[in-house]
Amino acid sequence: MKTLTEYLFFNTRERREMVRITDEIAAIVGRSGVREGMVLVSAMHITAGVYVNDWEEGLIADFGEWLEKLAPAGRNYKHHHTGEDNADAHLKRTIMGHQVVLPVTNGKLDLGPWEQVFYAEFDGQRKKRVVVKVMGE
Amino acid sequence: MKTLTEYLFFNTRERREMVRITDEIAAIVGRSGVREGMVLVSAMHITAGVYVNDWEEGLIADFGEWLEKLAPAGRNYKHHHTGEDNADAHLKRTIMGHQVVLPVTNGKLDLGPWEQVFYAEFDGQRKKRVVVKVMGE
Amino acid sequence: MKTLTEYLFFNTRERREMVRITDEIAAIVGRSGVREGMVLVSAMHITAGVYVNDWEEGLIADFGEWLEKLAPAGRNYKHHHTGEDNADAHLKRTIMGHQVVLPVTNGKLDLGPWEQVFYAEFDGQRKKRVVVKVMGE
Repeated sequence: MKTLTEYLFFNTRERREMVRITDEIAAIVGRSGVREGMVLVSAMHITAGVYVNDWEEGLIADFGEWLEKLAPAGRNYKHHHTGEDNADAHLKRTIMGHQVVLPVTNGKLDLGPWEQVFYAEFDGQRKKRVVVKVMGE
Repeated sequence: MKTLTEYLFFNTRERREMVRITDEIAAIVGRSGVREGMVLVSAMHITAGVYVNDWEEGLIADFGEWLEKLAPAGRNYKHHHTGEDNADAHLKRTIMGHQVVLPVTNGKLDLGPWEQVFYAEFDGQRKKRVVVKVMGE
Repeated sequence: MKTLTEYLFFNTRERREMVRITDEIAAIVGRSGVREGMVLVSAMHITAGVYVNDWEEGLIADFGEWLEKLAPAGRNYKHHHTGEDNADAHLKRTIMGHQVVLPVTNGKLDLGPWEQVFYAEFDGQRKKRVVVKVMGE
């Protein structure tokens, strides 16, 4: 069995940003030497997510507006009594999911034609981390 | 370490449909010869999901109505400026989740008494695919 | 390859309760002897979830109120025609997610500074189970 663990770092310009990371994951899978297995991609901060969906700017904007409706910022959340102002970021990342497990087949990410992996930042402009762990043979 | 990768294909009669796939996954686990491990079940199209919940027609209808409220079809989504009309399908599959990882114990799916695996189609009537990857020993 | 499978049992005092289980998962990882791998933590009942987020009472209360808005109890769900009254619990657990996969690195849970694992009960006051499966080397 082989494993490889790497970390991706983010410090987004905007507070909320969707960053495509498919190529970075594919490169880590390549370095691992794993031919058959799985790769876990998981946000290590609890106001960010990782998801798979379309690489299309319109849809990415739709996601942003939709999340704002389902989990609006600026409300009187109890979490804010601690001095924080980012409760909505915790909720938004819950909707999007904070991790994915991707299959590795014949040494490559085994993705459908439109599947792209995204890092979803909801409280950025500071250093954040994603763990990428490949496991297989 | 053993791995087995198979694909399930769907071409649903309805545009939206929930299809139970527990038995198909169990059969693939059986063919893999894996006694202890995990199986990843992941939709390869970004307008479909995979989830675990109850095999009860009333609840399945409730899921449909609930998703329509949270992520309604027919709105003026930006994604539709590309000519697509399925932005809601991308959002609905995000709520339901697009993949599950199931434990394999003693050569069998290690599920609770009511756990059933479903393929959730939100833009069907065309060929779609789910990857099933078993890994273990 | 090594695997270890254990089960956590819950019988919550309240119908809805969030229970921190990070230490229990870490102990199981320790017992497994796995140095590099993954651990699957998955609710075996379909009205409960498992999620990773903040160990902060205000935010936990926010989650409860938010879920009640997105997936309210007491509505006329079709699932209730079976005699059940917990359709909202099925929906709430879908929002929160029912499982996580955690990386194990150097023999320990590889979590970010604020990541905590929670069992999310939405229809408790009876015995429920979570499967914890460690796999690696």
